Amino acid sequence: MLKKSHKLDLTEFELQELGTTSKKVSFLTPLAKEESTSWFVYMQIVFIAIAVKVIQPLAIGYAKNDDGSYRFNESTMVLLVEIVKVIFCACVFAVQYKRAEDEDKHELYNLPFKQSLHFFIPALLYTASNTLVYFGMSYINPGLFIVFGNTRILIAGILYRFMMGKTQTDLQWLSLFLIAAGAVLSSPASDNKDGRDNYILGLFFVIIMSICSTSASIYTEKYFKQTQKLSIFYQNIVLYIYGIILNIFVIIFLRQSDKGLLDGFDQAGCMVLAAQSLMGISLSFIFKYLDNIVYVIALTVAMLITAIFSMAFFELSPTIGFFCSMVIIIVGIYLFYRSKLFEKLNIKEIVF
Amino acid sequence: MLKKSHKLDLTEFELQELGTTSKKVSFLTPLAKEESTSWFVYMQIVFIAIAVKVIQPLAIGYAKNDDGSYRFNESTMVLLVEIVKVIFCACVFAVQYKRAEDEDKHELYNLPFKQSLHFFIPALLYTASNTLVYFGMSYINPGLFIVFGNTRILIAGILYRFMMGKTQTDLQWLSLFLIAAGAVLSSPASDNKDGRDNYILGLFFVIIMSICSTSASIYTEKYFKQTQKLSIFYQNIVLYIYGIILNIFVIIFLRQSDKGLLDGFDQAGCMVLAAQSLMGISLSFIFKYLDNIVYVIALTVAMLITAIFSMAFFELSPTIGFFCSMVIIIVGIYLFYRSKLFEKLNIKEIVF
Repeated sequence: MLKKSHKLDLTEFELQELGTTSKKVSFLTPLAKEESTSWFVYMQIVFIAIAVKVIQPLAIGYAKNDDGSYRFNESTMVLLVEIVKVIFCACVFAVQYKRAEDEDKHELYNLPFKQSLHFFIPALLYTASNTLVYFGMSYINPGLFIVFGNTRILIAGILYRFMMGKTQTDLQWLSLFLIAAGAVLSSPASDNKDGRDNYILGLFFVIIMSICSTSASIYTEKYFKQTQKLSIFYQNIVLYIYGIILNIFVIIFLRQSDKGLLDGFDQAGCMVLAAQSLMGISLSFIFKYLDNIVYVIALTVAMLITAIFSMAFFELSPTIGFFCSMVIIIVGIYLFYRSKLFEKLNIKEIVF
Repeated sequence: MLKKSHKLDLTEFELQELGTTSKKVSFLTPLAKEESTSWFVYMQIVFIAIAVKVIQPLAIGYAKNDDGSYRFNESTMVLLVEIVKVIFCACVFAVQYKRAEDEDKHELYNLPFKQSLHFFIPALLYTASNTLVYFGMSYINPGLFIVFGNTRILIAGILYRFMMGKTQTDLQWLSLFLIAAGAVLSSPASDNKDGRDNYILGLFFVIIMSICSTSASIYTEKYFKQTQKLSIFYQNIVLYIYGIILNIFVIIFLRQSDKGLLDGFDQAGCMVLAAQSLMGISLSFIFKYLDNIVYVIALTVAMLITAIFSMAFFELSPTIGFFCSMVIIIVGIYLFYRSKLFEKLNIKEIVF
């Protein structure tokens, strides 16, 4: 509930991103605040998402057996995460509804059933992506899976181009290549090999999986923004309910596990549950108020921070290679935001 | 002599680089040619320098003992390289002098002694750098030496800024960082460790050494260009004669070797001698007609090509990491030349 009280602080900010018409949007209370907060609020969203993403792998690691397998039932975990998120969002939505002016109340949840079906599509794609992970994992080792997973940075750029019609400059495309390459190079397992690895098939599955989950994210972004007047918590409730339906379907018909439904939900399992739920909700804020490219960049930053933490905790000395990939990722991020930064600071060209 | 006959083909091109006043310069014969050749000739110079730089480590590897030590006497090698270069340049200069119009003859070698002393400075700095290598090598292993050696890309940028007053844009500075990081990451030994390695001292020596050799290169570039009317072969002769004097001094007073003066000059030793001499001469063309940044970038490209060759020869499968560092270096090179390219192709901004 710490998260919730924090969210209550974020009241107002401007939407100027991505062609969305500029207007004040309220999370919980429609209080007026000065424009300058918007940038700060964006940073807060990104910061929280990165923090949650850093905690997540630690929680997951804590809930693993020595052989790397999960103690909890993965299918149940996915379902429970959706349920926890729905309950959380329903509670916050109730507070928000109560606090809203009477004439605004209706707008918070004014979503015809037919339009709500748009949220079914990302729910379906996320479920497909989650199911594909299990197939993919049988072709390559988990380390390589993470390495190949960085292709999602490029896939996000390409899909964003086609699904949102968002153009990028040459520097921005190159920056996506740099961030992806830097992310691959900073992954500790980048050159691990495993007897059962089938690079081609593994890469193929990872790419299909990335396309599913990235297009799900972009679709979510698109419809969260198209129904911008709705409460984000109400939007989430609709999305997660479709998710719950689909995941029950998966558990019954697709994924038989030899574990009991509630196996492994000890303290560690519950931490994973909490981390995954927080992650999902922080993502929805990124999709509604920022965008998917911010998300993949935030993921990479989170990965760097996780690596630095694990070096500090396990007293590993950072390698020269890691230092270099950090430089590359930072250069990549700078290149991506260079034109925006120059515009904001009114710079034409820097020459040293 | 194959090299020489090739050089005879390069007759004319324009100098438009680096604020040097634009004028026709002849290598051997003052024949007029159309302007459009200049770009092609620049590419030829770069191509030859890269080719020589790819051959060089192969020749050196061939002349090494199994324990990695050289069979030849290193001090003698440095001296002999200077002597071979002087002899080669003297021969070509003789041809050039004979072919020149009578009124141009004088200009080819019109260098007052006092001004020739400017060539003493780079000769001294090169000798200092060569001597420092031996100190540095006792602190870190050769692999790490090469890795740290990539800092020269950044040092070249910084020294170029101060010695030549050449400004770079933010993208160009970042591109130097990217090329350096990519070069480090593609070096096979980037994460090797050795008991005797003293990172701090090793890095310190490499940086001092790089500063010496890079400022020598920039000084050479500066005075080769300031005395642009002189024959490049005459300029080289002056530079190498100072080098010979200094190296004789080093052999007598500084570096006692337990090898005989002419030990190890078998077939392999002579190949190294030829490769080093070619390298030196191709460098002088880069310094006179192009610049030091082109040189460090060419070095990195040569390193990539060498790595690809050695993968092909030793049937090593290229790692994902190597592929990524190649992407990074290519992006870096593009960023460095982006503004020039845009100017040439008359592009304002690319948006996809």
